Amino acid sequence: MRRIALAASLVILASYGASAQTNEQLVKGATDTSNVLNYGMGYNLQRFSTLNQINKDTVKNLVPVWNYSLADDRSEQSQPLIYQGTIYLTTHNATMAIDAKSGKQVWKTKVEYPAETPRIVCCGIINRGAALFDGKVFRTTLDANVIALDAKTGKELWRQKAADIKEGYSMTVAPLVADGVVITGISGAEFGTRGFIDGWDPATGKHLWRTHTIPSPDEPGGDTWKGDTWKLGGGSTWITGSYDAELNTVYWGIGNPGPFNSAVRPGDNLYTCSVLALDPKTGKIKWHYQFSPNNPFDYDSVAEMVLADMTVEGKPTKVLMDANRNGFFYVLDRTNGKLLAANPYVTVNWASGIDLKTGRPIETDISKDARDGKKVLVQPSILGGKNWEPMSYNPQTGLAYANTLNIGGNYKAEPATYKQGEWYLGMDLTDPWAWPNGPRGYLKAIEPMTGKSKWEVASDIPRFSGVLSTAGGVVFSGQLTGEFDAFDAENGKKLWSFQTGSGIEGQPVSWQQDGVQYVAVTSGYGGVYSIFSGDERLAKVPTGGSLWVFAVKQ
Amino acid sequence: MRRIALAASLVILASYGASAQTNEQLVKGATDTSNVLNYGMGYNLQRFSTLNQINKDTVKNLVPVWNYSLADDRSEQSQPLIYQGTIYLTTHNATMAIDAKSGKQVWKTKVEYPAETPRIVCCGIINRGAALFDGKVFRTTLDANVIALDAKTGKELWRQKAADIKEGYSMTVAPLVADGVVITGISGAEFGTRGFIDGWDPATGKHLWRTHTIPSPDEPGGDTWKGDTWKLGGGSTWITGSYDAELNTVYWGIGNPGPFNSAVRPGDNLYTCSVLALDPKTGKIKWHYQFSPNNPFDYDSVAEMVLADMTVEGKPTKVLMDANRNGFFYVLDRTNGKLLAANPYVTVNWASGIDLKTGRPIETDISKDARDGKKVLVQPSILGGKNWEPMSYNPQTGLAYANTLNIGGNYKAEPATYKQGEWYLGMDLTDPWAWPNGPRGYLKAIEPMTGKSKWEVASDIPRFSGVLSTAGGVVFSGQLTGEFDAFDAENGKKLWSFQTGSGIEGQPVSWQQDGVQYVAVTSGYGGVYSIFSGDERLAKVPTGGSLWVFAVKQ
Repeated sequence: MRRIALAASLVILASYGASAQTNEQLVKGATDTSNVLNYGMGYNLQRFSTLNQINKDTVKNLVPVWNYSLADDRSEQSQPLIYQGTIYLTTHNATMAIDAKSGKQVWKTKVEYPAETPRIVCCGIINRGAALFDGKVFRTTLDANVIALDAKTGKELWRQKAADIKEGYSMTVAPLVADGVVITGISGAEFGTRGFIDGWDPATGKHLWRTHTIPSPDEPGGDTWKGDTWKLGGGSTWITGSYDAELNTVYWGIGNPGPFNSAVRPGDNLYTCSVLALDPKTGKIKWHYQFSPNNPFDYDSVAEMVLADMTVEGKPTKVLMDANRNGFFYVLDRTNGKLLAANPYVTVNWASGIDLKTGRPIETDISKDARDGKKVLVQPSILGGKNWEPMSYNPQTGLAYANTLNIGGNYKAEPATYKQGEWYLGMDLTDPWAWPNGPRGYLKAIEPMTGKSKWEVASDIPRFSGVLSTAGGVVFSGQLTGEFDAFDAENGKKLWSFQTGSGIEGQPVSWQQDGVQYVAVTSGYGGVYSIFSGDERLAKVPTGGSLWVFAVKQ
Repeated sequence: MRRIALAASLVILASYGASAQTNEQLVKGATDTSNVLNYGMGYNLQRFSTLNQINKDTVKNLVPVWNYSLADDRSEQSQPLIYQGTIYLTTHNATMAIDAKSGKQVWKTKVEYPAETPRIVCCGIINRGAALFDGKVFRTTLDANVIALDAKTGKELWRQKAADIKEGYSMTVAPLVADGVVITGISGAEFGTRGFIDGWDPATGKHLWRTHTIPSPDEPGGDTWKGDTWKLGGGSTWITGSYDAELNTVYWGIGNPGPFNSAVRPGDNLYTCSVLALDPKTGKIKWHYQFSPNNPFDYDSVAEMVLADMTVEGKPTKVLMDANRNGFFYVLDRTNGKLLAANPYVTVNWASGIDLKTGRPIETDISKDARDGKKVLVQPSILGGKNWEPMSYNPQTGLAYANTLNIGGNYKAEPATYKQGEWYLGMDLTDPWAWPNGPRGYLKAIEPMTGKSKWEVASDIPRFSGVLSTAGGVVFSGQLTGEFDAFDAENGKKLWSFQTGSGIEGQPVSWQQDGVQYVAVTSGYGGVYSIFSGDERLAKVPTGGSLWVFAVKQ
């Protein structure tokens, strides 16, 4: 009798477990080594694994365990999620569940979108991943829908249209589920849109709140826009925010203002190029910090806001850090948005520094000249010192590992005319790049408080993949030419490499199952650099789309 | 001075070597372990490697070395060729040279064909590989062109149109270069075409000869066709022949007659379902042997004619062997076409045996009823006992390793009306399969003289990949569900498996470079079984396209 009761309770537990990802599980995601429940491998977006089976000694024996074809030849930037031995992955046109041991497909649900959709997508046919909560898989679609699927079957449970592609809106962002709310951003700042962040009820899809990233004239910050410019003000929200459950605060990066031509929109243009601290239940803004006021250079600040507990001036401090596209590495006190440090991590010439008291950049003549309509060579280029590709923060080394860009830009503003659903840029794009003689990118191990690199690894063609670091002292990163590489976290020495067939723009993750540590990453390129750089060396890199899983050869 | 002269001569040698594949090299291809110069890994099509670094003990440590994306989602059936560290590979829409060590693309040349081409392709968007000779890469195109590319640059050197797609002709075959002639077959027997084999000048593309596989009324064999039926008689030649350089004879298998409905075309219908022994310089037929006269069941006899030297009745004998689609395993004396043995290697019910004296099948009532228009359950089905997927003959074990089919067919002839460029079948296709309860295929180790299996490995979904066997005692074969497997050649025990992401229909090969033995195979499915079987289990297998290279982990 006891045995039967035990068996029955195990069955109940197992079936409950297979469909439930609770708030508690999501909050503990960063230390859950059996699963990868959060975008960023934790609400803190640290992309750090506490596992160490794959380490400096064993990584040389890392080999592919299986491969899964994504049946797609677009940019594969989706971060895999793993729950109880099942991998959940997205592409622009499908959501998939894959058995993590065998690589066999459990289910695949197609995503359909109107054929004209890609016309309003600026920088690649992309989806960056899903969110898991309460037995459901949440994702966005290129035509700006938010959908929920049954995690067991892939059946669509609900669908909500967030915005209209005719107006230039699209979605690539992986949702964040925080405090029981599905939170999504939006893309489209290059098309004269007005950005926002949405909250949705995970059970029903009911729209709970919308926080516009561009305030209307009667809202706080509305005075930072002249006339009707706020209506086309940009401020996309295309990378997933971080979340501090204790503070119950979501930190979400806000994109560039529209158009690039800053003379069109005098003022600071809040909340573009900022980070917003939000209440997840209501979307209410708790505080904001603006990295680049009235920015002309597309210094989108969407890239990840990484949370960590650091000692700053002898005091344990809850920080938020960001390798901003404007070339400065920021450390903020995330309890109040106060700036703690901001130092260049790449070559910067548009500002000589950031005023620690005001938090504002000390701009140089480059910025002035650019605003006056002159052609300037700006550092960094409109691709930024780091683009969207997420860095990893390793709390053991205290270093942030980031794929940075070493590209200058030829910038000249030009008039911009708004037409619904068309590009609204206001920049001369005939010759936008000032290529360096030498490497166009570096994987850097950055000291957050100084912006200085402990080490850096040059890359002729810059890396546009996410970075993963582990307690094994290893840093993983991919190349646009297909190599998935591992480096020594202490000194950047290359320890291992494998050619995955197509370029890597994916986000590596790690977990363990049945005593084996795995690393997974997608291969397949087609993102912003391959579209706009004209780098002829990529002509020899085939497109492709697949998911790779690696482990140490037993 | 001597040093300079030596250096100069080395340069000359190296540059000569990099572009030259001579007759001598092609003749020695089967024992050239550094290169894979021939389709079938040798003129004998044995697909046997004399290498043994990968063997029964070490194969468990086989791991992927690199992957190369084919940027394609069609059926990847092309056999890689390897010459001096460069891999030459084809897809339906590209020819590629890839560095064998790194997996990096050296060049890629697109193949364009009219958009309507796939309509006249019966069984998948496919190309089966290239031929190398004299610094050139030869291949066929789906729209029935033969082209030559510069092996160093991929630049097209010449192009010849072999036939018109409007008439239902297409090409998927890998060319054979024998005695300095580029020899190509043709596809299209399902579209009322008349098959042929062509000879071309490798240097210029000049058309040297054409041998029709369906004789005209005034040619020998012309009396085996009634009226004008020969004009639509089929007899495709879509798999590459073997070649005996000593006998200077090419052995090429001939496809099914058209239409399937045999009542339309009384007579033996030479040279359908036959093998032709040809003079490579002239295309002249030396002898022929017909496996299935007046065949109603699509028993295409294109599949590979493997050459070996065997002891038959105590005498060393030059044999040709064929696991024929009609279910019998044939051994012929290749000097004269005399039948030595023919025994069933799968379940057969259309004939009770093959008369060793006449060489003709002893047909059962199944064949009679089928010809009378009755519906019959025929074994094997129109897919055959083995389809195109090439077997391997291991001279050390004396066994032929073949992926065989265990599928019965519901066959009923129906009237056929010819219309140019349309299907011309004459068979009721509403319910063509009689699925077994159990495995639909077996990898079998077949004794050539008896047709009996020494061992067999069942496969629920049949295998449609080529087979490779090695002196290491290992047999390689892939599955439509993506696994690339290695078996013990003696007993069929599975030794190793790797999931390649998409289904495997490719042709594995092996070579060594810098002391390391490699095995390569393409992944990516979409061939005849996936098109026509309706096997729902394949819905969970993604399409894809990539080249895999494996070696033992050091």
